[in-house]
Amino acid sequence: MTEGFSFNIQSTDGNARKGLITTPNGNIPTPAFMPVGTRASVKALSPDDIRNSGASILLGNTYHLMLRPGEELIKNAGGLAKFMAWNAPTLTDSGGFQVFSLSDRVKIDDLGVKFSSHIDGAKIFLTPQKAIQIQRDLGSDIAMVLDVCPPGDAHPKEIRRAMELTSKWAKIQIECERKTGQALFGIVQGGTDETLRRDHLSEISDIPFDGIALGGLSVGEPTEDMYRIFHEIAPLMPKERPRYVMGVGTPGDLLEAIEQGVDIFDCVMPTRNARNGQAFVRGGKLNIKGAKFSNDSNPLDSKCNCYTCRTFERRYLRHLFTSGELLIHRLLSIHNLTHYGDMMQGAREAITQGTFNNFKKEWLTPVESLW
Amino acid sequence: MTEGFSFNIQSTDGNARKGLITTPNGNIPTPAFMPVGTRASVKALSPDDIRNSGASILLGNTYHLMLRPGEELIKNAGGLAKFMAWNAPTLTDSGGFQVFSLSDRVKIDDLGVKFSSHIDGAKIFLTPQKAIQIQRDLGSDIAMVLDVCPPGDAHPKEIRRAMELTSKWAKIQIECERKTGQALFGIVQGGTDETLRRDHLSEISDIPFDGIALGGLSVGEPTEDMYRIFHEIAPLMPKERPRYVMGVGTPGDLLEAIEQGVDIFDCVMPTRNARNGQAFVRGGKLNIKGAKFSNDSNPLDSKCNCYTCRTFERRYLRHLFTSGELLIHRLLSIHNLTHYGDMMQGAREAITQGTFNNFKKEWLTPVESLW
Repeated sequence: MTEGFSFNIQSTDGNARKGLITTPNGNIPTPAFMPVGTRASVKALSPDDIRNSGASILLGNTYHLMLRPGEELIKNAGGLAKFMAWNAPTLTDSGGFQVFSLSDRVKIDDLGVKFSSHIDGAKIFLTPQKAIQIQRDLGSDIAMVLDVCPPGDAHPKEIRRAMELTSKWAKIQIECERKTGQALFGIVQGGTDETLRRDHLSEISDIPFDGIALGGLSVGEPTEDMYRIFHEIAPLMPKERPRYVMGVGTPGDLLEAIEQGVDIFDCVMPTRNARNGQAFVRGGKLNIKGAKFSNDSNPLDSKCNCYTCRTFERRYLRHLFTSGELLIHRLLSIHNLTHYGDMMQGAREAITQGTFNNFKKEWLTPVESLW
Repeated sequence: MTEGFSFNIQSTDGNARKGLITTPNGNIPTPAFMPVGTRASVKALSPDDIRNSGASILLGNTYHLMLRPGEELIKNAGGLAKFMAWNAPTLTDSGGFQVFSLSDRVKIDDLGVKFSSHIDGAKIFLTPQKAIQIQRDLGSDIAMVLDVCPPGDAHPKEIRRAMELTSKWAKIQIECERKTGQALFGIVQGGTDETLRRDHLSEISDIPFDGIALGGLSVGEPTEDMYRIFHEIAPLMPKERPRYVMGVGTPGDLLEAIEQGVDIFDCVMPTRNARNGQAFVRGGKLNIKGAKFSNDSNPLDSKCNCYTCRTFERRYLRHLFTSGELLIHRLLSIHNLTHYGDMMQGAREAITQGTFNNFKKEWLTPVESLW
């Protein structure tokens, strides 16, 4: 394992694990949810807001940051965590996922992926080596390998090709020079086919990565297929290394994966949905633009203790949203990230107490009085 | 004077005054700057942000609030200060200024002003009586009379007609029932003609308003004309009542008016300019989108101690702005309001020490190292 990086399991409850990741920039109690700071900013939130939600690590997107402001500038500023005044652990993805989903004229070959920037059309050739160099400059505590992520409805042949290239690149990248103390996680592909997933997991696990991620989930496949992969694959992932499911998901998705032994997650859902007026509450969600909230003096979620819920009434939040006031984005994002942060803290406590299954049921049960 | 409302002058320095306004919801040290919370929100800021800038009172716009969410809803929520969780003094304007500048098909007669809502075109008849009733429901600590505010280039005949109607309505409104403890300020019109201003000041001062405002400034007239009115008129305003210049202005404008004895101000400039990337710094302003800031590791303003300046570097702020990240609006607004708040605090201290003139010069002198 990379010097300066470690993972210790403190309790288990069935397959679920409570642990602690240590990095040069701080510790991450797991299970952990990582808010997404796409362009070195978790949209509408300050570093204090993110910390107060209970998050101990956040994710930055290599694709966005390499295009603007560029990894060189962030390196000069002391790395991503310092640049954005977060000053705590960060994980960077490899850029691959955004190359496939956001950019134009994508062409993959054995050496890497060619694409045009979605900002100015500039032609870029991202190689496995380059993906590591950029992340070294960004200075994250956890870097991710460049992988090939096929869509949810991809043909088995395309999935097999993605696995092959991902494995080939993985072996190149484990040899690349990283920042001192920077961990590197491998990524398992294989779509929703358990056999392919098992095969690929075995290949990726053989490489001495500091952690293993399941990629290519939540890319359009049915939820039951994703849950099947959690159940069949997560328990087989190497026990002594952190397990990460990328780009997932709803509160129910996270609890399902934690139950099968997954440790870390990232997803734009809590912050993106906030900007559309959607708030997560116990057992469900509500949209603040609903007319029924127009004279509602309750807090957004009476079970929540975030700044938004401690301070404002639903009728005011609805007024902000319907008036297009900027403040609403911050207030709903604070609430949604706190919902996720509280859920992670609850999961950690429940695993310690051996009551995870009950906790999961309770968290997902709608609280009548909230509706 | 209205029971529960008072104004005491604590020091003077030439014409400049340092004082304290007391209201049922709290005290306002003067000179004071009021951030503008147009639609029950100072754009992009939370109540904490506003307080931390040094503001002790904020302004709400009756025109916007009567249209959405409506004064009835705000009354049910306990008034404007409670609705927006500000819980401190508020002042509401009468709506007149926005009727003239924002709405369609405006028709004024002796009884009031007819107009169409800029939101849904609904026809509305705002009378002097109605303006007070709405502000009673909004529950502000200081209400403003409905006045007629002609543009900066209005014909003297139009200005005289505005003065006449403003006086006529003023006499009606002083008799209208207000909320317990709610003060009412009169408004002086007269354009940039000192004789007209003096005449109208004399008429309005004869009515037992709790404070007197100069309206119809910063409406397109040359700055030197506005300053001439400050110099000629402000010292003539009743000494024992708060003096308010509406909708003004730059740091230089405010210091010019304070020097002549003005006590309170409101203006959208610090928050509106922030959203365009403009930051006020000692003796000037800078626009954060400038390429010269792209790798600048200095704080926005090294003389400022606001959250933004304590936490972030210019190169990060520039990145947020050029990337269109929502966070930049909050960070620049915090800085600009703190700039105004610090300036007001500096003015109060300088008046106490009899050094206001020096303070004014110093504040307006560019700090070379900031550029």
